[in-house]
Amino acid sequence: MSSSKPIRYSSVGETLEVPVINQLMAIPLEKPEVLSLAAGFTDNAALPVDLVTDIVAKLPETNPNNEFLQYGTTQGRPVLRKLTCDVLNNESSRSAPSFDPQNTYISNGSQQALFLATHTLCDPGDIVLVESPTYFVYLSMLQGLQVQPVGIPARDDGSMDHEGFRSVLSKLKEDGQLGRIKLAYLIGYYANPSSRCIGLEEKIGFAEVLGEFDIQIPVIEDGAYRNLFYETPNPTPSIMELDAFDPFPKLYLGTYTKPFATGMKIGYACCSESEWTSKMLCAKGNQDFGTANFTQAIIEQVMLQDRHKPLLNTLSRHYHAKAKLLHETLEASGLRNHGWHWDMPEGGLLLWMRAPEHVNTNMDGDFCEKCTDRGLSMFPATSVLPTNTQPILFA
Amino acid sequence: MSSSKPIRYSSVGETLEVPVINQLMAIPLEKPEVLSLAAGFTDNAALPVDLVTDIVAKLPETNPNNEFLQYGTTQGRPVLRKLTCDVLNNESSRSAPSFDPQNTYISNGSQQALFLATHTLCDPGDIVLVESPTYFVYLSMLQGLQVQPVGIPARDDGSMDHEGFRSVLSKLKEDGQLGRIKLAYLIGYYANPSSRCIGLEEKIGFAEVLGEFDIQIPVIEDGAYRNLFYETPNPTPSIMELDAFDPFPKLYLGTYTKPFATGMKIGYACCSESEWTSKMLCAKGNQDFGTANFTQAIIEQVMLQDRHKPLLNTLSRHYHAKAKLLHETLEASGLRNHGWHWDMPEGGLLLWMRAPEHVNTNMDGDFCEKCTDRGLSMFPATSVLPTNTQPILFA
Repeated sequence: MSSSKPIRYSSVGETLEVPVINQLMAIPLEKPEVLSLAAGFTDNAALPVDLVTDIVAKLPETNPNNEFLQYGTTQGRPVLRKLTCDVLNNESSRSAPSFDPQNTYISNGSQQALFLATHTLCDPGDIVLVESPTYFVYLSMLQGLQVQPVGIPARDDGSMDHEGFRSVLSKLKEDGQLGRIKLAYLIGYYANPSSRCIGLEEKIGFAEVLGEFDIQIPVIEDGAYRNLFYETPNPTPSIMELDAFDPFPKLYLGTYTKPFATGMKIGYACCSESEWTSKMLCAKGNQDFGTANFTQAIIEQVMLQDRHKPLLNTLSRHYHAKAKLLHETLEASGLRNHGWHWDMPEGGLLLWMRAPEHVNTNMDGDFCEKCTDRGLSMFPATSVLPTNTQPILFA
Repeated sequence: MSSSKPIRYSSVGETLEVPVINQLMAIPLEKPEVLSLAAGFTDNAALPVDLVTDIVAKLPETNPNNEFLQYGTTQGRPVLRKLTCDVLNNESSRSAPSFDPQNTYISNGSQQALFLATHTLCDPGDIVLVESPTYFVYLSMLQGLQVQPVGIPARDDGSMDHEGFRSVLSKLKEDGQLGRIKLAYLIGYYANPSSRCIGLEEKIGFAEVLGEFDIQIPVIEDGAYRNLFYETPNPTPSIMELDAFDPFPKLYLGTYTKPFATGMKIGYACCSESEWTSKMLCAKGNQDFGTANFTQAIIEQVMLQDRHKPLLNTLSRHYHAKAKLLHETLEASGLRNHGWHWDMPEGGLLLWMRAPEHVNTNMDGDFCEKCTDRGLSMFPATSVLPTNTQPILFA
């Protein structure tokens, strides 16, 4: 029943490649025997089953008139937006609120907000500044939108190399390409994949270098893993709260996906600009005119009943213990003596390893192949590096 | 805290206009005193609260290992995809299955699938063929993607005017513009806004006219309201099942949003082509890498436990009674004597009225203003017509 003439795709449709995430997501579900250390799946054992079933059982009482099964607005539930901003503002070092429910919207995971932000800002051929390494799904998205990622160079310890960053911008300036830079994307806390947090001076330094080149592009900070700290919250304020970022339009992304339940897919985006917010909401109106109101209503009740914090404490302990076990197992294995490097993470779901130079950690390399043979799914280096720096692997 | 330089948006971002849907969705939620006859909200009283709470309470038993709160795949739950196709194939007049779970995916309402389909096919400046009138959210989306809708002319009774359609295509051919047509979008059943079904000969005739011009573009059929028939299902097969559509790549859209719960936002797309399916899944991978697994798991259980059909029967009776009440109230009002026309719908959530020629039913016209003054939200003509034909209003 296939048609006889080939389909003529759009320019986007022609160049789309299968995102690595589509393959990785399928592994734990279709091959449960494989130990998947990729894709940031949460641990089924830590999912809040009792909490969710309890909240849902009481929704007919807490949310009268059946409204939790009705459509919501494109922007998302007002109370959930307010509670989300309240938590962020309460934890802020600034006295004035930096997060505004009016400029906040609920999205299908923070991923959708990342798409809406990039889609409203970037044309094919534009440049987005990203860390090295950065979130692999974002690199796929940029490929799909025909936007070029340019890496902010990193030092050996993983921190931003501001001097290297200056060189990158100088080169772009020489080539008359500075104007192509439309956006910067930073992952502030327990990043996927590096498990690093961006330090205070490191973050401010980034803003300063942009300032030196008179670049005032919008900056996105992805805080998806911020709440999953193991012992104490990372003290560095977000870009929304730092004076150094005042000149920049800003978007802060967070989520209730990983620090609540990955099956819910509720993310949020807090913007500093009402116009950009409105543009993203126009695009969301056209794409789905609102994220499922039912799942939003569940999380709203969790927040209203103050049951999120105890859950976060449980999750932090759970993932801390798992990270420690992985770290100690790796230490005991003697891998360090073979030239492997890693740090014990202080939060998040990932542990990031650097391989010795002679090990090819790309998807088609020996190493990944042997991992797969032994029932282990790892994440290859090639998918996270905007510029090819060195073989890196994370689990 | 606003930045000093204006943001440079993408070409898409620059031209985005606030979709009418964003305003309409807000009315019933922010102004509950307004009687909203726009936007296709379902009736809160008919939402399946007991069914949903019962299913969720038993999810820990029916879906072991907490998997319903875990991520799913980008394509969506295999069992839900299979059950969806089984129902469609069982109701089909064809013996060979026309709906294939492999080429089916779950989306954030069928709206997202409509976006993914159009995004992978249409570049700015391309043309999509749509009915007159057509679904207003699709027109907003096309505006947002800078794609031009061209209307298939309609007769006075609302059916497609094939002769008029020939003239439209002839004109495009003369102007050397036929190649710009990339896609056709039809709403087969109880359409938003016309509440019409496309008849068998009307549907086949559409394919034949395209054939006369040697046009083999992909055709989308939106079946969002198909299950909401009042007495008997509409007998016309979908484009997936008609020989006349064999030469065309096809996409059939359905949903569990309106015929289940609008708060769930679960739609589906069944495609005839594996390559196009794969393109849409690449785009979805970049945009959200999968629709909420939790809400999918709920609907999957509803289907597995065979509890969807009784719900549909209840919904059909409910909306039938409401449509009848509206129809009879309108009849009693004597509006027909003032030149208004409408038909009693045979399914769906909408009743479509044509105003006499002297009444301006546009958003900024007297009529809409007076409706608003009296606490009634109607849907204006301008938002549903690809080409301006005549004042039309629906409720």
